[in-house]
Order: sequence, then structure tokens, then C-alpha cells
Amino acid sequence: MTDLTLEEKASLTSGSDTWHTTPVGDRVPALTLSDGPHGLRRQAESADALGLGDSVPATCFPPAVALGSSWDPRLAHRVGAALAREACALGVDVVLGPGVNIKRSPLCGRTFEYFSEDPHLTGVMGAAVVTGIQSLGVGACVKHFAVNNQETDRMRVSADVDEQTLREIYLPAFERIVREAKPYTVMCSYNRINGVHASQNRWLLTEVLREEWGFDGPVMSDWGAVNDRVAALEAGLDLEMPPTGTDEEIVAAVRSGRLPEAVLDRAAERLLGLVRRVEGRATFTGWDVDAHHELAREAARASAVLLKNDDDVLPLRSGQRIAVVGELARTPRYQGGGSSHVVPTRLDSAWEALGRPPFAAGYRLDGQPDDDLALEAVAAAAEAEVMLVFLGLPEAAESEGFDRTTIELPAVQVSLLRKVAGVCPKVVVVLANGGVVSVAEWQDHASAILEGWLLGQAGGAALADLLLGTHSPSGRLAETIPNRLADVPSHLHFPGGDGHVRYGEGRYVGYRHYDTLDADVAYPFGHGLTYSRFTYSDLEARETGADEWSVEVTVTNTGERFAHEVVQLYVAFDEERPSRPRHELRGFAKVGLEPGAGERVRFTLTGRDLAQWSVSRKAWKVDAGPFTVEVGASSRDSRLRAELTCRGDGYTAPLDRMSTLGEWLDHPEGGRALKQLLQGAPGVERADPALFRLALGIPLAKFSTFGIGLTSEVVDRLVAAVRGEDG
Amino acid sequence: MTDLTLEEKASLTSGSDTWHTTPVGDRVPALTLSDGPHGLRRQAESADALGLGDSVPATCFPPAVALGSSWDPRLAHRVGAALAREACALGVDVVLGPGVNIKRSPLCGRTFEYFSEDPHLTGVMGAAVVTGIQSLGVGACVKHFAVNNQETDRMRVSADVDEQTLREIYLPAFERIVREAKPYTVMCSYNRINGVHASQNRWLLTEVLREEWGFDGPVMSDWGAVNDRVAALEAGLDLEMPPTGTDEEIVAAVRSGRLPEAVLDRAAERLLGLVRRVEGRATFTGWDVDAHHELAREAARASAVLLKNDDDVLPLRSGQRIAVVGELARTPRYQGGGSSHVVPTRLDSAWEALGRPPFAAGYRLDGQPDDDLALEAVAAAAEAEVMLVFLGLPEAAESEGFDRTTIELPAVQVSLLRKVAGVCPKVVVVLANGGVVSVAEWQDHASAILEGWLLGQAGGAALADLLLGTHSPSGRLAETIPNRLADVPSHLHFPGGDGHVRYGEGRYVGYRHYDTLDADVAYPFGHGLTYSRFTYSDLEARETGADEWSVEVTVTNTGERFAHEVVQLYVAFDEERPSRPRHELRGFAKVGLEPGAGERVRFTLTGRDLAQWSVSRKAWKVDAGPFTVEVGASSRDSRLRAELTCRGDGYTAPLDRMSTLGEWLDHPEGGRALKQLLQGAPGVERADPALFRLALGIPLAKFSTFGIGLTSEVVDRLVAAVRGEDG
Repeated sequence: MTDLTLEEKASLTSGSDTWHTTPVGDRVPALTLSDGPHGLRRQAESADALGLGDSVPATCFPPAVALGSSWDPRLAHRVGAALAREACALGVDVVLGPGVNIKRSPLCGRTFEYFSEDPHLTGVMGAAVVTGIQSLGVGACVKHFAVNNQETDRMRVSADVDEQTLREIYLPAFERIVREAKPYTVMCSYNRINGVHASQNRWLLTEVLREEWGFDGPVMSDWGAVNDRVAALEAGLDLEMPPTGTDEEIVAAVRSGRLPEAVLDRAAERLLGLVRRVEGRATFTGWDVDAHHELAREAARASAVLLKNDDDVLPLRSGQRIAVVGELARTPRYQGGGSSHVVPTRLDSAWEALGRPPFAAGYRLDGQPDDDLALEAVAAAAEAEVMLVFLGLPEAAESEGFDRTTIELPAVQVSLLRKVAGVCPKVVVVLANGGVVSVAEWQDHASAILEGWLLGQAGGAALADLLLGTHSPSGRLAETIPNRLADVPSHLHFPGGDGHVRYGEGRYVGYRHYDTLDADVAYPFGHGLTYSRFTYSDLEARETGADEWSVEVTVTNTGERFAHEVVQLYVAFDEERPSRPRHELRGFAKVGLEPGAGERVRFTLTGRDLAQWSVSRKAWKVDAGPFTVEVGASSRDSRLRAELTCRGDGYTAPLDRMSTLGEWLDHPEGGRALKQLLQGAPGVERADPALFRLALGIPLAKFSTFGIGLTSEVVDRLVAAVRGEDG
Repeated sequence: MTDLTLEEKASLTSGSDTWHTTPVGDRVPALTLSDGPHGLRRQAESADALGLGDSVPATCFPPAVALGSSWDPRLAHRVGAALAREACALGVDVVLGPGVNIKRSPLCGRTFEYFSEDPHLTGVMGAAVVTGIQSLGVGACVKHFAVNNQETDRMRVSADVDEQTLREIYLPAFERIVREAKPYTVMCSYNRINGVHASQNRWLLTEVLREEWGFDGPVMSDWGAVNDRVAALEAGLDLEMPPTGTDEEIVAAVRSGRLPEAVLDRAAERLLGLVRRVEGRATFTGWDVDAHHELAREAARASAVLLKNDDDVLPLRSGQRIAVVGELARTPRYQGGGSSHVVPTRLDSAWEALGRPPFAAGYRLDGQPDDDLALEAVAAAAEAEVMLVFLGLPEAAESEGFDRTTIELPAVQVSLLRKVAGVCPKVVVVLANGGVVSVAEWQDHASAILEGWLLGQAGGAALADLLLGTHSPSGRLAETIPNRLADVPSHLHFPGGDGHVRYGEGRYVGYRHYDTLDADVAYPFGHGLTYSRFTYSDLEARETGADEWSVEVTVTNTGERFAHEVVQLYVAFDEERPSRPRHELRGFAKVGLEPGAGERVRFTLTGRDLAQWSVSRKAWKVDAGPFTVEVGASSRDSRLRAELTCRGDGYTAPLDRMSTLGEWLDHPEGGRALKQLLQGAPGVERADPALFRLALGIPLAKFSTFGIGLTSEVVDRLVAAVRGEDG
């Protein structure tokens, strides 16, 4: 660092403007950053600072809500690589994505930017996007680190979460991505975590991210997330974006001795390291717009989820009289609002892709009732054998910056559906929505429901491919669809108030809640139909090493069409009283099979897949005992199960004075020592069983209080004895 | 304190033995303490230290689980006074009760010692018991302070609870009792609260209990709850029980300067104050055993809850052929196990009180199947017009010292019920249980269910009074009966592990959870049938002063029998998205009415009844706005409603740099100042509505980051301006 002055180093730790890092003369070039989890939002030079809605055209791929539903990391990798190619063409060095926060509540305004309610699925998909982006030497920026699960009061709210929940739900996707995909950069979130801003959270940015997980790149702030430059630098935040013109604070702090210069050097080095890394990125002058549009269409096709399909109403048969109802078939809703909003290179509507069949708008997108539109739609329905009804949330309903307050479809749309269903026996509902919508109230009016989420610029064509049956749907739910908002585990705690949001539901997010409680849901996590059928057979689960197991299963397409099955592996713990989620996703594989074909799918499990975070040990712990592997087609559709045994990590908590009688008796040496001592003690053999049960819960040191002869000195001697010290 | 030596003062701060405080020569007498929330457990001098199950006979009144269901504070006061009379006769100075912890989970092994899931009902009933006990100059000891809601790991577990939940759920009963009933003593609990043992918790024992609530007596430890004498004294714990022989630690700590002598003086003074207070207590040589038994019977009668009564199968008609099945009719289960266990002066069985009708034991109390007993019962049922089936939990199922793991009745009992119901059309189930049992699986086999809880020594006679109709049932549920254990809000968090139990459900305990979520329950909080009917009319709700409202309603007995109605007043907040419990009990009145008679019932509400605890202000806050008073017969049976308006406490949060744009615009002066500044600012008038909505959530200081002209200096000037400082 000797060739940079103190001022130059300080200048590196904030941007030069909203989208660039600060150059240092000719020696250090500025890097260009761009929003872009599902498409580049490279801002036109003419736009104002944030320039929302005003960027250079780029391919709008399916947002994470859709891509996550593809359960296809290879596809995610290809999308990432395409993003990188466009980044190179647009002169972008770091793409600000993927977003890998957990879908804690469907109300989160930004839920469309995230993959799943499950950390394993999120981590695998996020890692694939990162390796895709970085395959061309462009940097990815994993965000928003961490626990940024709502928009309400997002810049101030403290996410109050216990560490076990952090470790098992909100951090593992980041951990997997950092360890496996080695992202060039990480973006900290706006919110506080247990009272401390993520941007100033040393535990998070240094102890966990770097010391435990080995991250070696710079952490940048979410746009405007820094509150105290010096505190942030010390915590491990290297780059303030956008700049607030406060670099001189850093200089002054170093000069006054308040900030060790080594801290600044470390940040500057990380930023220089990033510059070196992206120096080698590919350069292109453009990209194949058609090919990227085609990839966006493939990704969209892989992401839509067929929720129901009574009497195989889908795919449509050739020659069937169809009609399309719903403004969203003509004016697609294909991405969400806010910083991720892309100006697409082109835009397909489903209605056009279906060949412009008879169409009626049916409702207004602004939610105002319009009887004429509804009447027109009913007339169209009466003529049709199959009615395709496109419903969904209007743009204004969901965006970065605020949270929804309901998961209901607009009332005018539900009312339209009822009317249409009254005159047409076969209704197919096609949904467009970034956050889950409730289907409970109206789904009986639909023979089929195709959940399209937000499918990007080629979503219209992709939906036509699926409806017409040129391709089978292959998406699976990456989040549970509850019957009603009140069933969502975070419901009573979201979005909090008074500066705090309590994560009261703890680890019981999504299916971890519903399945542990055996609660009704509309559609479970992992669910999704195809135009074919699959059987599971020959499950083989066995120990293959210390803390390692292999699970193999054969999946066979027994239907009549090529289709994909998503084989899901859950690790389950059956307990009388739940002390952990009943089961958790620990593996999945998307397999495309011709009719009649089968494939052997293999998974590996390790101790970590069974581990829970121990608050007392501040470490992962693996308990000895049986566990079950469930292989199936959703969290509620387990097809085959096998029991395995885990030897555990061998850890036994050291005994001390506050260990209970029960813990002493359970401990190999402690039990021996104690029994020896108590031999012949008065009253032990005639203890009433209920009293004995009560006594098992009492710390040994407390027995002195109760005058049972176990004096404080005796307990001390016992403790010394089992610790191998001189009694 | 000048007349006591340092050693003498230290000796005062622990007992002389398990049941006595330490005397000082002739100057300070020893006080005698005794377990006794529902009856004296004065230990025989011959017994061992704790002497569980081995005490001098005393009247066993209904435990709190029953007395709480009476919703009758006058009755509770009389029971308290009777306890005091027996205490005097037995030479007891302080009765260790009442227990006023909240029923967080029906699994809590000690739930039978607590009144309710609701803090208002708990506080009113607990205060009545305290004033009753203290009416004869005997000291009460309110316990277990605080958040002692489970037995599992009770001496170590940290109850991790946010302060809002503490203030609104777990502390208010203590607060009401301290403020209104002025108990002589308080007992701290075993557990930790947010990591700090209650016995060493200065915030709890000094800041809240004394400085805020004005408690001026000594706090004693639960038996064995002290871990560090010096830390406990400093926190505000005055008396260690039983003694651990460590008074010299205190002396040494004072001598070394580690413990200020003033702290010890304060504790000693409080103990001397207690001695002076109980000096004046009444003295009796005995009590009227029959009269106390009769009071126990009256209390039991008032406490049983008639859950269902299809076709008015109850009361029994004279001349009906009845038969009794169930060992519990002959061998009553009438109290719980552990430190509260009383040796009763006598014991009524329901079977005897019913005049020994035909009887069959039906099942074994140890849960072992016995086909002969079942066959006998079915034969008896076939002969009867009405079958009284006594079911419940055996003693071994619930006790201090461990928690239940299920809320199901023993399988042999449910199986017996099915068999009996198969041959007798009219089945009345009478329940005996300290913790809630699920009725969902079997209640269709019963025409009537009389929930007797644990009714004390006269419960058998009381049940006969109710079954035969000499009295109408008048108890109401003090806790919700859920359909299944998994529906209980604490289910996934109870009893925790690894040294912690997270109160994840927060304020949503009991009906606050079920009613806010509109979730199904078996029987709601406040429910209970009688042999009569009541109408509600003429609700008048009006503001009577600053932060004061009166609510009046007329309740009329429109049935044919004398009976009691429990009129319940809930304050409700209807919100699209719940940010607080949907409604909360804020008043109740038990009214006995002759047929045709009516009574005007009056309630007063104050600001505190509408308040929520503000974490940011560390104070109660009262929001301005509408609220609803609901008057009715249960939390789900609201008969009349009226809307009122609260002016709020007038508090406006001061604006600062981190106040959001929305908060600035909502603030009277801030809004004016900001609008003035922004007049004519570029871009403001053409802001897109979605962007504007996003901007409303952004702290003012952050706008400088986004280059919209609101520089940091401008924000500083605005803040100074609205604070009335020089800009």
C-alpha cells in the first residue's frame, strides 16, 4: 500500500458517483457497477442519480421468484453467464446480484427478487448464478447480507433474530455461495440485526463472513446503508455506495488515531484485489439479442408451476375453441418494480404467442370495476371450449420500497373469474405475480392453474409453449402457497414496528412450519405437476464414511410425454414433541426423461446436513441417533423413505456444578462417580418415582440446599473427579 | 440498623432452616413460612428437609387452575382469608402464594398452580387472594417472579422474551397485585430472564418491582434459586431460602468493600419490616374444619366449567336411572403434585356425594388396559338412562418438576368412553385434570362435558351439586381449550433446549393468538354454560374524563333458574394487518341473578387499558384513534359492541436525521418546514407515485446519498428548526 497516499486509500472506500468506484490517477481504474439480478440495469448517462426506470435495454430474464421455481442450477448458471455477457457488452464490471434473502413472508415487497423460503434451494440456485456471472470474469455481488426480509422501515428496522435461526435459515445460502461459488463481492443490507446495522456489524462482516467462511473480497454497502463510515470500515465494510462525500472523515480518523491505518489498508487492498480480478473480464461489443431472448424463454418455461390440472385440461388440444380473458395476457406483468427493473430488449405477450385467439380484457389493471369489460369477457367465455383466464397482481401492488398488506388477487379479477366460470366449464387460470397470491377462495372455479410468477420478457411465449403443450411444465414451488395470510408463520410478527421486527417464528419458516405442525396448505413446497407421471423405486441409503451417507433412487417416466421430475431429498426427524423442523430439504435433482425412461439419481449427505446450531457451544452440533431420508416430489409427497443412523459428533457437554442430576447420571464417568458416592445414601433407594423425576431436573449444586447430604464440597470433588483433575 | 452487627444483618438474609427466617437473639423473632397457594403445607417437625407429601392436615381448597375459572375475586378473597386463618392456627407467618404465572403452554407441569392465560384475570384473582390472606395480618408471597412458565430445566433455562411481551403479558399480574394488594413479600423464580437469573436480576427486582411499582417488602428466593449471594443482594433479593450456610460470604464482601454495607442494610431493613408487619397477625388455636370444607365446596362449585350440554342432558332429572363409570369418581384427583401438595382434612368423592349409584371403575389409573373393567362398565352403561363418565389425568401425569408432552387423555379412558357411548345414548363426561386436555377426538361421544379441573378436597360434593342441579355451573374457561397441541401458540418453542426457551409467540398467548388469527378452537377463553340463559342490552359506552371511559350494560336472566353470568369486557382493535392482539380482556363481573332479574354492570376503562409498551420510549404508549368495546360471554361470544375514540397520550416522536420522509411529512412542524424547503425543488412535482411511496420510507439523511438536493447540512438545519433550536 506504500504507493497510495492516505487520501487515495480513503477515496477507494467510497464510490466516485452512484455507479462507479473511485479511480486513482492512471494507476487504479474505476469499476462500473450495475443493478442486475435478472437483467442489466445499466444506467443511461443522462439519467438522474438513481435513474430508476431509465436504463439501456438489456434482456429481462425471469426474476429470482421464477428462476428459483425452476429448481435447475444448470439453467441458472447459463442465465448468469448471459448476464455477464451483457455486462461485458455494456462495460459493467460487477453485477449487483443475485439476491438470496429468504422469503420469510409473501408480503415482502421485494420477494420477487429472492429464490425461495428454503436456504438449501436458495443457496444452490444463488451459487449457480454467481458461477455463471463470474465465468466471464465479471464480478457478482451477493446481496443483501443479511436478514433483509422486508421493505417496511428497511433502513432502520432491527431484525431481532436468535442465532440458531440466523445460522440455520438466514445465513446458509450466503455461506454456501461464499464457500462454493466464491463471489467477488458481497453487499450488506440496510437493516439492523439484533440492534446493529449490517453495515457496521463486525460479527457479521468479519467474524462470520471472513473468519468462518473465508470470504476474501470487498463488502459494499447497499445504496445508502452506511451510517458511520469509521464504524463501518472497522466492522469490515469496504466500500460505501453511493458516496456521501465523507472520505475526509476517514482521513481525519486515521490521523487522530481513532481508526488504525491497517483497517483502511485492508479495505483498500480488498478493493484493489477486486480491480485486479475484473481486469481480466471478457470484452464484447454486444450480444445475440435473439439468443438471449430464447434463453429467457427457456428459463421462463422451466419456471412456471402447474398447480392443478383437473381432467388433464392442459395441454390444450389442437382444434379446441379457446378464448383468452385478462388484460395481463395482452399487457404482461413480467418483472417487479424498484432497482431491479430492466428495460427489456423486446417483450412477448401470451396472447400474441398463442396466435391472437379471441380476447377480452375482462378487468382493469387499476382495480376499478368495469362492468362492460366483464360482460365482454363472459360473452367470449360462452363461445369457448376452454377459457384461458390471465390473472395477477398489477405493477402498483408490489415493488421494492414497500410491503404488501394482503395476498389476495384484486377483487375485480376474482369476480371476473366467477362470472367466466359460470358460463365456460373448462377454465385455465394463468397467474402473474411476484409474491404468492391466495388461491383458496377461487381455485374451485379453475380446472387448471398455471402459476407463472414474473417470467421476464419472454414469459408470454413460454406460457404459450406450456399451454399448447410443446413443452411440459417443469417448475416446482420454491415457496408454500398458504390457504390464507393468517396461516403464514411470520404473520403476527411481520413487519414489526417501533424500530424492531421480531423473528418470533424462529426456524419455522415456510414448510418447516406447516409440515412440523401438520397444518393445511393450499399447495406445498416443492409441488408442481407435469404432463407426464413418474415413479420412484429402488431407494438405497447407506453410510459411506464418517459422517457421510449416499442416497440413490431410480425415477422413471411412466407417462406418455417427455417431462422433468424434480426429485427432492428431505432429512427428517420424527419426535413426539418437535424440537426442530420435522424435515428439511437437503438435496434435489431435476431430471428430464423420455417416456418409459428411468434414471438413477444420487445424493450425498454429510454431518452438516443433519446439524443444528448450538447456542451454548457456538458451533454446529450433530446428535447421535436415527434419522430418516425421504425422497419424493414435494415436501408433502414423500414416495420412499429409509432410516439411517448418525453416530453424532461425539461431543459430551462437560459436567459442572450446575449440571442436573439427570445429566450426571447420563454421563459415562459422572454417572459412575455419582452412583458410587450415593451407594447406601439414606433415602435414595426409597425415593418415590415422581419425586425422583422431579429431582432429575435439579442441578447437582442445588442438592446441598435441600439437605440431602450432597454438600457443596462433595459436588466440587465430583466435578474435579470427572474432569480428571485431582479430587 | 445500628443495633445489629454486620454478622447479624447478614444472618437475616438467609433462613435458619428450610421453613424459618433467622432470629436475632431475643430482638428479632424467626418467621415461619409455609407452602400454601391453595392450602397450608405446614411441615411436620419430624419430616425431612422438603417434606413433600408429609405435612399437617389443612383444608385443600381448589388449586388456582380451578379458582381462576370461577372468575370470582370475592370468593378468592374468602379463600385467602380462610388460608390465613389456618396459617395463624398453624403458626405460619407467611403463606407462599398465590402463584400468578401465565399459562403459556398447557404442558407446563405446574399449570394447575396458575390462574389463567390472561394477565388481567390472573392479576384480579391473585390480588383478591393476597388481600384475603393479608386481611388477618398473615403475609402473602406472590410468586414466581417472573416468567416461570415451564418446569423443564427450570433452574437454569433462560426465558428469552422481548420487553413488550414481558410488560404486556408476563408482568402485569404481578404489577396489579403489587400496586393494588400490596403483598408483604414476593418470591423470585428459578429461571433466567434474557440470560440473567431472576434472583440476580436488578432490572426486575429493583427497577421494575420497586422503583416503578413501589413494592417495599422483601423479595425471597424460590427454594434454591440463588446462585451468587452477593449478586443477588445487589440486585434486590433480600432472603435466600433455604439457607446454604454462606452468610460469611456476605460479611466478607462487605468487609472487602465489594458489597456496600448499605445494600445489606436495605435488605435487613426490609426483613425487619416484614417481621414488624406480621407481628400483628391474628392468633388462633384452630379453625372450623366443617366451615372451611364448606367454603372449599362452594369454591369448587363456582369453578367447574360446563363445556357442553346438548339437549340439556344436565342437570340430572330426579328418578333418572344413572350409573357412574370411572375410577376417578371414587378416587378423586383433586390437587397437583409437588410443593403445593396438601394433606387434606377430609376428602369427598363424587360417587359418594351422588348417593353411591351403580358404579364401575372402567379403567385403571396407571393406564394399563383392563378388559374386565371395561366390560363391567359397558354392562353398567346398558342399564342406565344417563351415564356419568369420570375421566382425567392420573397423578403421575402432571406435577411440579416436569412438563407434560401431550394433552391427550390416557388412551384406555378414551377407549372406555367410546364403548360406553356405544350402549348408552346420554353420556356426561366429568373431567379431572390440572392442565388442559384435548376433547376433539372424543367429545362427539358425550352429550355433556363438565370440566372439573382439580377441585380440592370438597370437589366430589361440589360436582354432585352441579350434576344434580342444586346449583348451576358458573365457571368460565380461564384458558382456551385448543383442538390439538400443535395449535398452541408456543408449541414449536416450548420448552426450548440448550439452556434457552424462546418466547417466539410474543404477546400472542392463548386467545390473543387464536382470536387474532381467527383460528379454530375447541372451546374459547371465557366460555362456560349454565342451566339458565342471559341476554345483554342497553350498552352505553362514553368518555368520562381524560383517558377514562365508562361502559355499562344490562344483563338479564331470561331462563328458569338462578345462575351466574360472567360479563366480559374486551377492548378491540380492528386492523387490516394485526400489529397487536385483536382484543384483550379488560374487565369482567360475575353476576348471580334470579330468573327474570336483570342487573346493570359498570366498567371503567383508562388509558392503560388501551396502552402498549413502547420499546423505543421505554414507556407505555397510548395511540390516538378509534377502539371498540366488546361485551359478551366469551372471547368468541361478543353480544354488544360500541366504538369509542381515544385522544392518545399526545406523544409525537421527535424528528431527527433518521426520521423518514413519511414521518417528516406526517409531523405538524416537520411537514411544514420540509414542504417549504421543497417548494419548487426540481422533480418533486413530477415524482411517479410508486417512487414516491418508496421514498416515504427513506430516512431524510439518506436523500443526500441519492443526490436529490437534500444535503446533509440542509437536513441538520431542518432538524434544528423543528426542535426549536437555532437553525
